[in-house]
Amino acid sequence: MENSVTPWEVKGKIDYDKLIKEFGMSYMPKELPKIFNEELLFRREIVYGHRNFNLILDCIKNKKQFAMMTGLMPSGKMHIGHAMVARQFIFYQSLGAKVYITVADIEAYNTRNPDMEELKKVAIEEYLLNYIALGLDLKKCDFYFQSKRSDDGKKSNSYYSLAQKSARHITFNEIKSIYGDITPGKLSSALLQVSDMLHPQLPEFEGQINVIVPVGTDQDPHIKLAHDIMDRMKGNKFSPLSSTYHIFMPGLKGGKMSSSDPLSYVALTDTPEEAEKKIKKYAFSGGKDTLEEHRKLGGNPDIDISYQWLRMFFEPDDNKLQKIHDDYKSGKLLSGELKQILIEKVKIFLKEHQKKRELAKKQVEKFL
Amino acid sequence: MENSVTPWEVKGKIDYDKLIKEFGMSYMPKELPKIFNEELLFRREIVYGHRNFNLILDCIKNKKQFAMMTGLMPSGKMHIGHAMVARQFIFYQSLGAKVYITVADIEAYNTRNPDMEELKKVAIEEYLLNYIALGLDLKKCDFYFQSKRSDDGKKSNSYYSLAQKSARHITFNEIKSIYGDITPGKLSSALLQVSDMLHPQLPEFEGQINVIVPVGTDQDPHIKLAHDIMDRMKGNKFSPLSSTYHIFMPGLKGGKMSSSDPLSYVALTDTPEEAEKKIKKYAFSGGKDTLEEHRKLGGNPDIDISYQWLRMFFEPDDNKLQKIHDDYKSGKLLSGELKQILIEKVKIFLKEHQKKRELAKKQVEKFL
Repeated sequence: MENSVTPWEVKGKIDYDKLIKEFGMSYMPKELPKIFNEELLFRREIVYGHRNFNLILDCIKNKKQFAMMTGLMPSGKMHIGHAMVARQFIFYQSLGAKVYITVADIEAYNTRNPDMEELKKVAIEEYLLNYIALGLDLKKCDFYFQSKRSDDGKKSNSYYSLAQKSARHITFNEIKSIYGDITPGKLSSALLQVSDMLHPQLPEFEGQINVIVPVGTDQDPHIKLAHDIMDRMKGNKFSPLSSTYHIFMPGLKGGKMSSSDPLSYVALTDTPEEAEKKIKKYAFSGGKDTLEEHRKLGGNPDIDISYQWLRMFFEPDDNKLQKIHDDYKSGKLLSGELKQILIEKVKIFLKEHQKKRELAKKQVEKFL
Repeated sequence: MENSVTPWEVKGKIDYDKLIKEFGMSYMPKELPKIFNEELLFRREIVYGHRNFNLILDCIKNKKQFAMMTGLMPSGKMHIGHAMVARQFIFYQSLGAKVYITVADIEAYNTRNPDMEELKKVAIEEYLLNYIALGLDLKKCDFYFQSKRSDDGKKSNSYYSLAQKSARHITFNEIKSIYGDITPGKLSSALLQVSDMLHPQLPEFEGQINVIVPVGTDQDPHIKLAHDIMDRMKGNKFSPLSSTYHIFMPGLKGGKMSSSDPLSYVALTDTPEEAEKKIKKYAFSGGKDTLEEHRKLGGNPDIDISYQWLRMFFEPDDNKLQKIHDDYKSGKLLSGELKQILIEKVKIFLKEHQKKRELAKKQVEKFL
């Protein structure tokens, strides 16, 4: 099955142009406010598509408060691909957005692992700790578990009731056309996720407010479900949901980073030496088979994982990146040399990140 | 469709023996503790079947705390049929049970009326007020709305999470075999109802405790669903759920009391005169067509609504009831005379009840 994109699996090489067309999103506007150029994810069009992003741009222009909503699945190790997503919500926080982060522990319980204690540990020690080390300011953030929305009963009641009431506004035929055949657990989780996206606008939270949800393309069915349900719910004032779509950061061997295959990613807790070994041994190369051929024909940066990781995360300097690109394409830069550039960057990043992780440990204690 | 019993509809004449067999319940034990003989619903076997009722009898015998769980659907007027159910939970309260009453407003929203304000008004002014007038002690009662479990966030979180997590433990095939084809709204409500039945046993509430749920036979699918889910959930200590089953109080014209047909019931807010008119005009009679025939052959109390209402609610004195029964059957008592006996009882009941309702109004103010 090629190009299968559902929230539950992503297989095959993805044709983003086709997705934009099929899913009915728009490409990101070519002209974004200056501040967006400071974040390579926007500058390099790694965030490539959107729905209703103009509403968020209006908020920024008019200095109007907006909110950002994201979620994490507390399973496996947090890796570089997750860090790329975290960069986005930390960026929105720097723009003044109120940041909502949900730990999708109910979804994990219903679709993966029913050990709630383990889910909690992973969410805090693996994800939250890394988020803080990456720059998340906990003080300007509502970090919560789906299973424990708030100590405040009013907030919890309104969050869960919204999920429960969402069920009225959707039919099984619609569910099937969005998700295919699903289990009761997945349906229940999908409706709770609708509440994750809409509840910041309830009176018990921010009240009506623009909300941006940055996601991978595979999450768009959830966004569409939230749109349908909010349109049909009377008695609640909701501003239309905004969303952006980013391309996936490819796994080391090409394809997807997969929690079940530690050789497909670099984890934020890998030692610099482990990361070096993984990249040396497994990073898929766009270079030619022989030195002679490479010098003559050049490499292909578009399929070279080391180059892509530099582009998507590790090399913020556009000029340097361009030079690497050109040198690789011309054959001046060899695959091993390109890998070495990435390795140096990754090692420095991990060393610094792991120091920051140690410093962040005090901040997460209250969650444990 | 005869004998169709699902939680959503009850059609046709019901063969309770067949149901006991098909649904796998047991008949109530012939020997109950003395105290049960004081309540006509038990003495006259109107509560006729059960699952795990022995666990509750053990609690009573050993003076061990137990809980009683019931729910109300906030739609239409509260009538004599509802009052019969209320008598049961007021009886359990008198035995020392901790009484849980849920207003199924989320279920009403998802399957009937999406006006939450109206649902609240009906729940308080129609149902709760009548419950208190019938003898419910609010102080020994946890009365809550499905949409607003508690002001205490811990309680709300655990109640709703239990409903959400229940979804993991059931398949769509099982759902279909229990309920037939249902909507997402009904599925969601069914799982919330599972939490209504199980959550008293969570640590945030009573902890592991025996819970009795008195229901009509049509509610048994919900009970079975709760049994299945509690068996499969690890990490929670639940005592098996106990339930009893009562026969339906028949509507005035025979068949069911129906909220959509005010002539099928006597409402607790009907004036004594309205009630009199309804009974005179509509109460289905088991008498013969002519006076001569009736005197000769006698009437049939088993199908006579006036007699059944006396038996099920209005005539607590067994000797008097037996005399009415025998006189009617022998032809000594005429249909009109039987109706008049009921009418007098109903009028006295309504007058007294409506006085108590006025006195109860202060108690419900805090809920509005």
